[in-house]
Amino acid sequence: MHFTSEQHLDDGVVEREFTLGEIPGILWTPASASTSAPAPLILLGHPPLGLRTMYPRLAARARHSAAEGFATATIELPGSGDRPRWPAVERARADLRRVMAAGEPVSDEIVDALILPLVDKAVPEWQAALDALLALPGIGGPVAYSGGVISIGIRLAVVEPRISAAVLFAGSFVPRAMFEEARQVTIPLHVMLQWDDEGNDRQAALDLFDAFGSEEKSLHANMGGHTGVPQFAGDVAAQFFTRHLK
Amino acid sequence: MHFTSEQHLDDGVVEREFTLGEIPGILWTPASASTSAPAPLILLGHPPLGLRTMYPRLAARARHSAAEGFATATIELPGSGDRPRWPAVERARADLRRVMAAGEPVSDEIVDALILPLVDKAVPEWQAALDALLALPGIGGPVAYSGGVISIGIRLAVVEPRISAAVLFAGSFVPRAMFEEARQVTIPLHVMLQWDDEGNDRQAALDLFDAFGSEEKSLHANMGGHTGVPQFAGDVAAQFFTRHLK
Repeated sequence: MHFTSEQHLDDGVVEREFTLGEIPGILWTPASASTSAPAPLILLGHPPLGLRTMYPRLAARARHSAAEGFATATIELPGSGDRPRWPAVERARADLRRVMAAGEPVSDEIVDALILPLVDKAVPEWQAALDALLALPGIGGPVAYSGGVISIGIRLAVVEPRISAAVLFAGSFVPRAMFEEARQVTIPLHVMLQWDDEGNDRQAALDLFDAFGSEEKSLHANMGGHTGVPQFAGDVAAQFFTRHLK
Repeated sequence: MHFTSEQHLDDGVVEREFTLGEIPGILWTPASASTSAPAPLILLGHPPLGLRTMYPRLAARARHSAAEGFATATIELPGSGDRPRWPAVERARADLRRVMAAGEPVSDEIVDALILPLVDKAVPEWQAALDALLALPGIGGPVAYSGGVISIGIRLAVVEPRISAAVLFAGSFVPRAMFEEARQVTIPLHVMLQWDDEGNDRQAALDLFDAFGSEEKSLHANMGGHTGVPQFAGDVAAQFFTRHLK
C-alpha cells in the first residue's frame, strides 16, 4: 500500500489516497485514531461508476463515520474509473443497456455476466486491501462492509471472517447463485431498500433479505427514489455500526 | 376524564389511571411536563388482550417515551379487559380460533367481523380521549399514534387531523377495506414488521406498506418472532417520534 496524497480536512479527518498494486483507493481516518486506540474499520463499497464519480457521496459517508470514531476505506472496482477497461464486463453492460432501452426483461445470463466476474475479481482485492489496512497504525478490528454491489458484500460476508457486520444496499442486480450464498451469511446485517426505486426489483430484494441466514437482520425500506436515501436512514445505519463495531 | 389513581415512579414519571365515561385508561407524564412546556402526546395502541395483560409492555414503552419528554396515554379497547363483553366480536374471535386450529384459511368475512366493528367503535373513543387529554395542563400537541391494531391506527390517521405521525405494527389481520383507507394516509409513518412472525401474513403487511399514501414512510423489518421486537428497533422508533413531535 502506497500513499499518494494526504489531506487534513477541517473536521480533523485525514483523507489519504493510496494505491495497492494497480488499484487506487482512499482512506479516511478520524482525528481520534491512534496506535493505542485503533479505529474500527468500515470498508465502503459502491457501484461500478468510478471513484471520482462516487467521491462526493463516499466522502460524506466517510466523514460521518469518522465523527463516530470509525476509519473508512474504499478501493476502485476492477474495470471502473482509472483502471483498465474490462471488455467482458463492458459487453455485459452494453447488453444490459440494450435490453433495458428496449423494455425487455433482463435475463439471468446478462445479470450473471455483469455481476459474477466482478464479485470473483473484486472480493480478493478487498481482502488484500483489508490485509494492508489492518497493518496500518491507528486502524484495528472489528471490520464492517457497507454499501453497494450487494453481491460483493454477500461474498465478503461469507468468505472473510474478519468482517463482523454489514450494511447492504438492496437494488443492484443479483445473480441467482448469490441467493444460495446469502443463506450462508451469519453476521448481523442492516439491509437498506429504496421502496420507490423504479429501477429496482423490489420482490428480488425482499426474497434476498429473506434468504440471509443471519440471526440478526433488519430491513429498512424508505422512500425517496434510487439515490434519495433520507438522512435519518443514514443515521440509523450509523447506529448499527456503533452497536456492532464498538 | 376522572383520575382514579396516581403513582410517582422512580424515574419521575407520573402514572395515573383514569376513566373516561366507562372506558378505563392510563396516562404517563414525564417529570419534565409543565403548563409552560407541555409534553407532546403519544396515543399508545395495543392488541385487544386487555390493559392488565398488556400493562408491562405498555408501561415499559411509556417510560421509555417519558425519558424523551413525551406523555403517553392508552385506553381499554371495547370488549376487552374490564369492559363489557361484546358478543359479536367474541363470536368472530371464536370463528378465528376455530379455523386457525383446523389449519383453514382465515376468510375475509372473519377478518371483517373481527376488525371493522372494533375500528368503528374504538376510533371515536380514542378521539374522545384525545379531547380530554389535550385539555389537561402539561400536555400539548403534536400527537402521534403508536402501536397495534394497525387498522385503528390507519383510521385514526385518516380521520383525526390532530395526529401528525404514527408508528404502526404490521401483523394483525387487516380487512380489505382498510387497504383503501391506507391510500388516504398522508402523515409520516414508521411501520414495524416482525419478519419471522409465523402468525403474520408477511405479504399482506408488505402490500399494506405499499398502499400507504404518505410521502415519508419507512418499513422496519426485524427478526425475533411476534413479541421479540429487538431493543434497537424500539430505539429507532423513538427517534422517529423525536423527529416528528419535537
